Amino acid sequence: MTATAKPAKTVNCDVVILGSGIAGSTLAAILAKAGVSVVLVDAASHPRFAVGESTIPPLMAWLKLLAVRYQVPEIHALTSVDKSTELIGNSFGVKRHFGFMLHRPGEEPDPREANQYVIPDMLTSASHLFRQDCDYYMFQVAAQYGCQTRQNWRAVDVDLDDDGVTVVGHTGEILRGRYLVDASGFRSPLADKLALREQPARFKHHSRSLFTHMVGVKPFDDVSRHPADERPKARWHEGTMHHLFERGWFWIIPFDNYKPSRNRLCSVGLTMDERLYPKNPDLTPEEEFHEFLKQYPAVARQFEGAAKVREWVSTDRLQYSSRQTIGPRWCLMSHAAGFIDPLFSRGLCNTFEVLNSLAWRLIAACGDDDFSEERFKYVEKLEQGLLDYNDDLVNCSFISFSHFRLWDAVFRVWGLITTPNTMRITTALGHYNLHDRDESYLQKLEDSPYTGMFWPDSPHLQKILDVMVEVCEKYEIGEVSGDEAADQLFAAVVASPVTTPFGWTDPNRRFIYPGPRDMIKYLRWAATSDVPELRTLGRETVRGMVTSALKRKKFL
Amino acid sequence: MTATAKPAKTVNCDVVILGSGIAGSTLAAILAKAGVSVVLVDAASHPRFAVGESTIPPLMAWLKLLAVRYQVPEIHALTSVDKSTELIGNSFGVKRHFGFMLHRPGEEPDPREANQYVIPDMLTSASHLFRQDCDYYMFQVAAQYGCQTRQNWRAVDVDLDDDGVTVVGHTGEILRGRYLVDASGFRSPLADKLALREQPARFKHHSRSLFTHMVGVKPFDDVSRHPADERPKARWHEGTMHHLFERGWFWIIPFDNYKPSRNRLCSVGLTMDERLYPKNPDLTPEEEFHEFLKQYPAVARQFEGAAKVREWVSTDRLQYSSRQTIGPRWCLMSHAAGFIDPLFSRGLCNTFEVLNSLAWRLIAACGDDDFSEERFKYVEKLEQGLLDYNDDLVNCSFISFSHFRLWDAVFRVWGLITTPNTMRITTALGHYNLHDRDESYLQKLEDSPYTGMFWPDSPHLQKILDVMVEVCEKYEIGEVSGDEAADQLFAAVVASPVTTPFGWTDPNRRFIYPGPRDMIKYLRWAATSDVPELRTLGRETVRGMVTSALKRKKFL
Repeated sequence: MTATAKPAKTVNCDVVILGSGIAGSTLAAILAKAGVSVVLVDAASHPRFAVGESTIPPLMAWLKLLAVRYQVPEIHALTSVDKSTELIGNSFGVKRHFGFMLHRPGEEPDPREANQYVIPDMLTSASHLFRQDCDYYMFQVAAQYGCQTRQNWRAVDVDLDDDGVTVVGHTGEILRGRYLVDASGFRSPLADKLALREQPARFKHHSRSLFTHMVGVKPFDDVSRHPADERPKARWHEGTMHHLFERGWFWIIPFDNYKPSRNRLCSVGLTMDERLYPKNPDLTPEEEFHEFLKQYPAVARQFEGAAKVREWVSTDRLQYSSRQTIGPRWCLMSHAAGFIDPLFSRGLCNTFEVLNSLAWRLIAACGDDDFSEERFKYVEKLEQGLLDYNDDLVNCSFISFSHFRLWDAVFRVWGLITTPNTMRITTALGHYNLHDRDESYLQKLEDSPYTGMFWPDSPHLQKILDVMVEVCEKYEIGEVSGDEAADQLFAAVVASPVTTPFGWTDPNRRFIYPGPRDMIKYLRWAATSDVPELRTLGRETVRGMVTSALKRKKFL
Repeated sequence: MTATAKPAKTVNCDVVILGSGIAGSTLAAILAKAGVSVVLVDAASHPRFAVGESTIPPLMAWLKLLAVRYQVPEIHALTSVDKSTELIGNSFGVKRHFGFMLHRPGEEPDPREANQYVIPDMLTSASHLFRQDCDYYMFQVAAQYGCQTRQNWRAVDVDLDDDGVTVVGHTGEILRGRYLVDASGFRSPLADKLALREQPARFKHHSRSLFTHMVGVKPFDDVSRHPADERPKARWHEGTMHHLFERGWFWIIPFDNYKPSRNRLCSVGLTMDERLYPKNPDLTPEEEFHEFLKQYPAVARQFEGAAKVREWVSTDRLQYSSRQTIGPRWCLMSHAAGFIDPLFSRGLCNTFEVLNSLAWRLIAACGDDDFSEERFKYVEKLEQGLLDYNDDLVNCSFISFSHFRLWDAVFRVWGLITTPNTMRITTALGHYNLHDRDESYLQKLEDSPYTGMFWPDSPHLQKILDVMVEVCEKYEIGEVSGDEAADQLFAAVVASPVTTPFGWTDPNRRFIYPGPRDMIKYLRWAATSDVPELRTLGRETVRGMVTSALKRKKFL
């Protein structure tokens, strides 16, 4: 055997994507499926650990939309715990609910200082994504659609010119593309090259984090000392558990809580305000975690006999932001652009909303060879908006953790968002399907006055958020008491015509679990509302459901 | 929150294990279960890729023995594809057979130049281990038994003295133990420190390797042009496929060939004599692989439309050896000691046989604080013997790949070993179970004249191996023709009283698939043989089966 060719030194393509995590891999699969030539590179290699395991209903809705719109059915594997288990493997946990419990140092938690929101079955069957498996799966899908991949490939230089982008790898290989997507993360080569990071991050919220994966973490239900009649409907262990404390929270995200799962691991971590809890350089991350545990006896009981199976990671401040996320021939996507906090698990949801808005623009741009910044402007507006709105919500939550009634009010604000946020996506997709893949139904999702807000069509929601920010920030500086702030925010929730009728306005209902009847009641209520955005959402949803049902029965 | 403790700088324990792969993790679990304090360290972190996916019946037997002897039932999860799927996850492939097909450059393979050995159900249900999952699983088991773990922890210094061992990590942390096991691999810190590597490796065999994982590799059955009546009993895709060519072979180890599996990957690689095929520095490993593929059209068809999901690895010579593997307070275990070739998948089997011989000695030594080298001498003899015998077998195989009839004879030598090799372990374990955990039944396994040989009790097998080495090496230097060498080796197989009666002596049977009747016939034949080692094996097996059946029926 003799040599027949020199190794290729320059590879030409349409799009270079930096970062083969779930975002970069999914975008690569979508583009490759659409006939765009893609090279996907990463400095590390699958399989690998990633955080961001907890899913939320609007994330599932975005994923379904991506699978259908871009005709990559493999994405459906991420849209529910059942599908992930069936199509990727039996390593995924179930997320029936979001659970919150307030803790005070040295005390048992008060059963009346707990909240739970059970995700309506009608919305989705959410999961705890075992990221090492689903991220690798999406990477495999990208490879199978013909995307070229390079792992253990470090981008040592990124260069942008009028005609394209050049990325040089540590191997000497040169990638030449027409557009560059940086889907890496905090250590973004593009943000570095173009000095895009705001220093310090512009966000109000401050936190740092400690996290790992463990075996042997006990279900909180088994160590809770709360009487049976004060426990919520769903077992704490069957969802994402948030143990709240002053300006911080622990997450407990089990993968062993779904019958078919064979995964014994549990994702464990905490984030806390680094201004209140500065890093102690004398402690290892593990020791620091145990110092926190010592303060909260009920949480500590969950960890008796547990063992880490990864090294603890201790971060500095988690928040980072970028002054610009779209430029000529480049996009700083999602976690390369900025980050707030794992609280409320919005990271992946934001990622896939951004990906959806980027992908069709990029496919079109590759088609007509017009990569003008203007064309991608909305993506920037969306990215920045998602971060800023999330900053407000998380910052208010951290402020409220020191006062249960105020947190309880913030919980309701957060809770009432979920259903409309999810249904607007689901409904748009429904009409897209019913109307022969009419893109206008999907593009309408981008045509909202409050880009980046959780329900971007609703001035009424904006009003509630304004009250939330105002009262929480006043409480923070001591201008109002916690009770006063809670009263005011609660009153705003009660008064708002968009507050979903699931019990959010009843101070005695801290465990919210909308059933099918509640959902029907909700639709009737929405469709007959005086509020335009709510009425439209309700009527469109009902219209879509009826048309779809008639089609199934072959009436149409 | 304020600091309450300085980070621990020295950790004391009984045993320090370097390397948290499947060997180090399993040993750690066994020792921790026995009450030995263990620190298990690794320079990298799970989850991670590893090669060595194909299992063989005696490996399964050793694993079952370890699970029972050391009371670590979790090890059972590795003993069959069903158990791995049930207890670890649905990512494992099945291995119903070993398949071999000879290829010549530019030609379609001749259906008469193929062999298959279907593993008898009675022996085991073998698997293609998805190493990233099962290695991590065993690491988790070790952690759960209380072994202390450190990942991403690089041993920067190893020091041995009369009283113990000291390992210094890159973090500055110091581990102080009474014994050191290096279960790392080629880049062993201990081999480096004590200059244990033989330069060059003492083995006759020479090969280098290219390997990766891919999606979209087609079953060979689908691309084979052989007529139906010339195909073997089991589909090629349901086992480990070896495509042989002159002084080299491809492996195809699918994970998608077992119904419950959701894994779409296939392990792909080749090893070839680097003296005949020196590395071409102008080609990337992927390009080099495709140069090989181009030579073998039927193999190339398997890869049409396939895509890599890992970077190709290209090794230098695979063989390495150590002048010493046991010393005062240290053991260089298995792949840290040496390696031959993935051919015949003996790596893991050797690892666990060594682990079995090391573990009980180490537990005893920790108990009476006597770590004298003498106590561990057998482990060294075993390690070196396993490597040397394997070297002979693999070297002869590589020599024979250029002449089908000679390879066919070597195939029969390899094949006739499997059953007695497996049954001696299974039978010893059976008697151990029946006789109240009487260790003497297990220790008798170490009391054999040909330590490291595939069936170490049998001078008759030694004779066949001697003939094999002699004729192959004569053929290699041109002293005899391929046909002459084949005739002589075949005659030795036919003449030997220990050749299993499964058709090995029939030159027209190239596909061997012993059924339950053949196994019964085999036992009767063995139990009534004139050959002492065979008669003992046959009688012990029958006696064990009868006693066990009677016990089950409560007769005893």
